[in-house]
Amino acid sequence: MGALLTDLYELTMAAGFVAEGKHRATATFELFARRLPGNRKFLVAAGLQQALEYLQGLRFTSEEIAYLRGLVQFAQAPEEFLTYLEQFRCTGDVFAVAEGTPMFPGEPLLTVRAPLVEAQIIETYLLSMVGFQTMIASKAARVVAAAKGRSVVEFGTRRAHSPQAGTLAPRAAYIGGCAGTSNTEAGLLYGVPVYGTAAHSWVQSFSDETAAFRALQKLMGESTVHLIDTYDTLEGARRAAAVGRPMWGVRIDSGDLGGLSREVRKILDAAGLADAKIMVSGDLTEQRVRALADEDAPVDAIGVGTDLATSGDAPNLSVVYKLVEIEEGSGKRYTFKKSAEKSTLPGAKQVFRKAGGDVIGCASECSGCGEVGPVEALLWPVMLRGQILDRMPPVGEARQRAQRAIAALPAAVRSLDASDEVYPVTISEELRALDARVKA
Amino acid sequence: MGALLTDLYELTMAAGFVAEGKHRATATFELFARRLPGNRKFLVAAGLQQALEYLQGLRFTSEEIAYLRGLVQFAQAPEEFLTYLEQFRCTGDVFAVAEGTPMFPGEPLLTVRAPLVEAQIIETYLLSMVGFQTMIASKAARVVAAAKGRSVVEFGTRRAHSPQAGTLAPRAAYIGGCAGTSNTEAGLLYGVPVYGTAAHSWVQSFSDETAAFRALQKLMGESTVHLIDTYDTLEGARRAAAVGRPMWGVRIDSGDLGGLSREVRKILDAAGLADAKIMVSGDLTEQRVRALADEDAPVDAIGVGTDLATSGDAPNLSVVYKLVEIEEGSGKRYTFKKSAEKSTLPGAKQVFRKAGGDVIGCASECSGCGEVGPVEALLWPVMLRGQILDRMPPVGEARQRAQRAIAALPAAVRSLDASDEVYPVTISEELRALDARVKA
Repeated sequence: MGALLTDLYELTMAAGFVAEGKHRATATFELFARRLPGNRKFLVAAGLQQALEYLQGLRFTSEEIAYLRGLVQFAQAPEEFLTYLEQFRCTGDVFAVAEGTPMFPGEPLLTVRAPLVEAQIIETYLLSMVGFQTMIASKAARVVAAAKGRSVVEFGTRRAHSPQAGTLAPRAAYIGGCAGTSNTEAGLLYGVPVYGTAAHSWVQSFSDETAAFRALQKLMGESTVHLIDTYDTLEGARRAAAVGRPMWGVRIDSGDLGGLSREVRKILDAAGLADAKIMVSGDLTEQRVRALADEDAPVDAIGVGTDLATSGDAPNLSVVYKLVEIEEGSGKRYTFKKSAEKSTLPGAKQVFRKAGGDVIGCASECSGCGEVGPVEALLWPVMLRGQILDRMPPVGEARQRAQRAIAALPAAVRSLDASDEVYPVTISEELRALDARVKA
Repeated sequence: MGALLTDLYELTMAAGFVAEGKHRATATFELFARRLPGNRKFLVAAGLQQALEYLQGLRFTSEEIAYLRGLVQFAQAPEEFLTYLEQFRCTGDVFAVAEGTPMFPGEPLLTVRAPLVEAQIIETYLLSMVGFQTMIASKAARVVAAAKGRSVVEFGTRRAHSPQAGTLAPRAAYIGGCAGTSNTEAGLLYGVPVYGTAAHSWVQSFSDETAAFRALQKLMGESTVHLIDTYDTLEGARRAAAVGRPMWGVRIDSGDLGGLSREVRKILDAAGLADAKIMVSGDLTEQRVRALADEDAPVDAIGVGTDLATSGDAPNLSVVYKLVEIEEGSGKRYTFKKSAEKSTLPGAKQVFRKAGGDVIGCASECSGCGEVGPVEALLWPVMLRGQILDRMPPVGEARQRAQRAIAALPAAVRSLDASDEVYPVTISEELRALDARVKA
């Protein structure tokens, strides 16, 4: 995936900025969600690492430049622009919140301060990478909460929106609290724990179910999970029990999972396999996971696929990337949008997290100076002059951060139930004053 | 994206098949949708080209094999399996329906006939690639129908589920009938027409709107599209009209698009710019596109982003990949699943399309032999012994096929309105008899 993975207008504008001599102006853009999707009370930031790796590696190949040269939209573009692309490197600064941080609408997840032309070209990719992972991490936090302590494993690659989505979703889901994934690539690339044993085709490929179970046990020992619903779930459970130890347990992938899990539990216990575990899966949604937990089904682990990897109940996040400041020879100008439902606040911002809620303030202000109690500034420099500042932390750190921070949210914000209660986010006096002054 | 982009259980099963000496058995798997998503009456097949390219290029690197070797799940796997992966090549046959073909539940989009171990490893990737593109092509067909002749341009990369999803979505949307995309990479890789001019940040980066419009006109000439809603849409329209020709027209990205388009049309006409066009965009959905067309809004082109690139009203497709036959030394065995809501029909199949509807039959039968009227067999060989059979047709051919074939569907199936009417798909007598015999 190359440098052209961006909306064409980013490139035509870039050409225009060069033509107008504006490309050396320094722009500040902020990436944030306009609003929470229905059914969410907070977001979990994710995707920063891949965003930064993209920025650090971004180059235009001669094939890509030749393609642009052939487009009607570049017929009048200055040659200087195409030459500029040959030398293109990201040279900007990025400020961001750590992956795993709970976030709210209007709060920047990421701020880019870079030459205008550069900041523009990277918009589309940043939005899709950070927006997607943040959406999935936020969804995962809900599914995990719904499971009430049962392990949730991400199973959704086959229904994800493309193979790459299927590999990024488990990374984000792990940050959001899942125990692991079925996607092997996510294990190799991101260090997410991987799980998997056998599908129905394993059972079908043997002429009888018991032979399939014995062969799996021989291969996987203590890791064996017998899939027992290919023909008849309870009969499958009896056959698995007859095969006996070693096994981790069994998986039920269809039918009334709550009722079946109780019957299967009895069969395993009666066979002296009280330590054998039960996993369930099969088109599970957050709501069905919650129902299983509410009926206290004897289920140890839950595989959630489609609903998790596509954020099925809220399959998009209204992330935007907005110009808030521009510095040219003549000085700094604050920018904003006033249009109908999409107005924005001017100027680079900081998010201050305090005991009573968040304050969105100007990047330069000192919110909480002189106040009592801890104040955290969420946006930190992560890239300066195009170079990633620090080793990227392993994904497990982001997961731990998310767990701690979600546990510290007010109960009403953590609750899965719909309510009007929202986490308090206010605008600082200084930012309000700037907004009023600039829009006057 | 590598060979590990698959569910771990595909690889553990593969190891098991080698351990059991079953890997030389020839398996037949079929990929199909179990049911139509709500609000759909047909699917449009897409994604075949990328699926075949994946199969032809699939290799395991030594890093990938070393990763597997370190997993607990492979502690007892036969060394022969890991050696096999070093030499891995796809050697199977693939039969598929052409991209752009309207399809219905239960009808195979793709059939794989390959050594069992190989057919298993490729499942996850095939499902995510063909499932995603088919979902988007099917959605695009609805949005295009809703627009009643107005051009629909795919604008959704920034909200797509990952950058790759953002690049594949426009390919599929183009097959489904869109005019093009904003995603430049989709232009380079797939030959999809690309569109784009400027965003709000272009206007904001100038100290006044008229200066921004003049600069854009200088850059883009006849391709100029002025974005007029940064501050005030009607004022923006008057400023664009004052700047005058050359321009393609204007774009409105917020507010009451129907009402504003009528006012803007008057402003342009009054300025003698009757040939200037109007494009609208901004969180448009299929329903809003339909409403604009129904109120006969003077809109020439429509940009649809999030709802199209995420199939917002139906963000997943229930595609599955099921073992239907297995041939070992001892002969052929038909396989099936009997479990609750997920039962399948045994044996390799063909889809026969006739004037009165489709017949799903056995691959070997001659449905329609002796009947009057044309019969089309939809599944054709596209890969033999791991080699793509033919040059892949340009994506425009699939788009034309879809347009012709959709136009030929019964009116009730093409209609956007909900109804109980479904396209007639029946099971052939021969397949029914096989099913009864095998399940007995």
